[in-house]
Amino acid sequence: MSPDLEVLKKEAAIRAVSLIESGMHLGLGTGSTAKYAIEELGRKVAAGELSNLTCVATSQASDVLARSLGLDVGPLTPQAFDIAIDGADEIAPNLDLIKGLGGALVREKLVEVQAKRLIIIADHTKLVQTLGQKAPLPIEVLPFGVDSTLERLKGLGAVGELRRQSGELYITDNGNLIFDARFAGQDLAELERTLKGTLGVVETGLFLNMAERAFVAAPEGVREVVR
Amino acid sequence: MSPDLEVLKKEAAIRAVSLIESGMHLGLGTGSTAKYAIEELGRKVAAGELSNLTCVATSQASDVLARSLGLDVGPLTPQAFDIAIDGADEIAPNLDLIKGLGGALVREKLVEVQAKRLIIIADHTKLVQTLGQKAPLPIEVLPFGVDSTLERLKGLGAVGELRRQSGELYITDNGNLIFDARFAGQDLAELERTLKGTLGVVETGLFLNMAERAFVAAPEGVREVVR
Repeated sequence: MSPDLEVLKKEAAIRAVSLIESGMHLGLGTGSTAKYAIEELGRKVAAGELSNLTCVATSQASDVLARSLGLDVGPLTPQAFDIAIDGADEIAPNLDLIKGLGGALVREKLVEVQAKRLIIIADHTKLVQTLGQKAPLPIEVLPFGVDSTLERLKGLGAVGELRRQSGELYITDNGNLIFDARFAGQDLAELERTLKGTLGVVETGLFLNMAERAFVAAPEGVREVVR
Repeated sequence: MSPDLEVLKKEAAIRAVSLIESGMHLGLGTGSTAKYAIEELGRKVAAGELSNLTCVATSQASDVLARSLGLDVGPLTPQAFDIAIDGADEIAPNLDLIKGLGGALVREKLVEVQAKRLIIIADHTKLVQTLGQKAPLPIEVLPFGVDSTLERLKGLGAVGELRRQSGELYITDNGNLIFDARFAGQDLAELERTLKGTLGVVETGLFLNMAERAFVAAPEGVREVVR
């Protein structure tokens, strides 16, 4: 990543945060780009430019960061979010997403499904014509009987492997494992239903029909993509 | 429960275990009736009537009991089970089941879906005309954002409450919660698909089309029900 693109990612985050108004209920994403948004939010609150915000974080890491900046972070309740801001691993032209390379896909989905407006921030390398083009699809699975669950997923055409970190199996905030899967071209809505319906699967990183707009850091500047 | 019915439950367990032959790979259920089966299995192995069994347990409790009786208990692999024996909370005439009042529904389902023969042992009070007639349907849900998940389930017509034990929320072996739900009469296969497809739901206690036969302790003796 060139330093210039990093600056532009920060600018994309600032553009997203500019949509936020005082008194809003917010969903805070996870990952390197979402971090910029949380920092900008903290800056605006400290500067008195925003007030009376309530937030829910999609990971322990974002929770800790947001609190350290003085943001009011609470548990997820059924209250709708005015805005949720998060990164993505792949962004299709219609703003369907693959998320979860950061490992927080389940909490991100639980939060962002309640967002009136889901705003994505990312750099231009995340733009794809078809989801799955570059990134694997993360699927959160139960540890118990995981080999059997992987057999079921392979029976559906998945090729992939369990995520590892420093050689050890990666464990999610929910105590589960992540299978990073690749599928041959399929109808995504159907794939999503089939995967979620599979015994041993907790959730998938397909975020279909959820994002409203994306601010994308590209060499020529920040591009705004609307569904 | 009359002492006589308890004796008959033990007899039902003995009838189920009589189907087991040396060298088999077995799934061990959870709960008061499944316990009788594990004890009978341990007795037969100790007496030299059965040998070379390998087992997988559906809960910590059954794992500990089986090991204490000298049974060979291993992790769940994709290897099919020759026989799995377990209890049930409700048994329909076609042997569709509600399970999970013991809290082990997810592990039971992960094991028993791999059983060539799933044998149920229960007392006659578990026989119903329609599932849901007496027992609630246990649904395992993620703790994060559980109130939102319950809103989604209530939107599907569920009435119920989170399971508690000694006043505290009950936590499953997988670190999740259980929502004990009641639904108005619905197509069960459709209900199962819809519930499993709901964000925040890990698994349900509906075991459809899985059991091969049941040994049912009734006042007049042990009744055998075949699908």
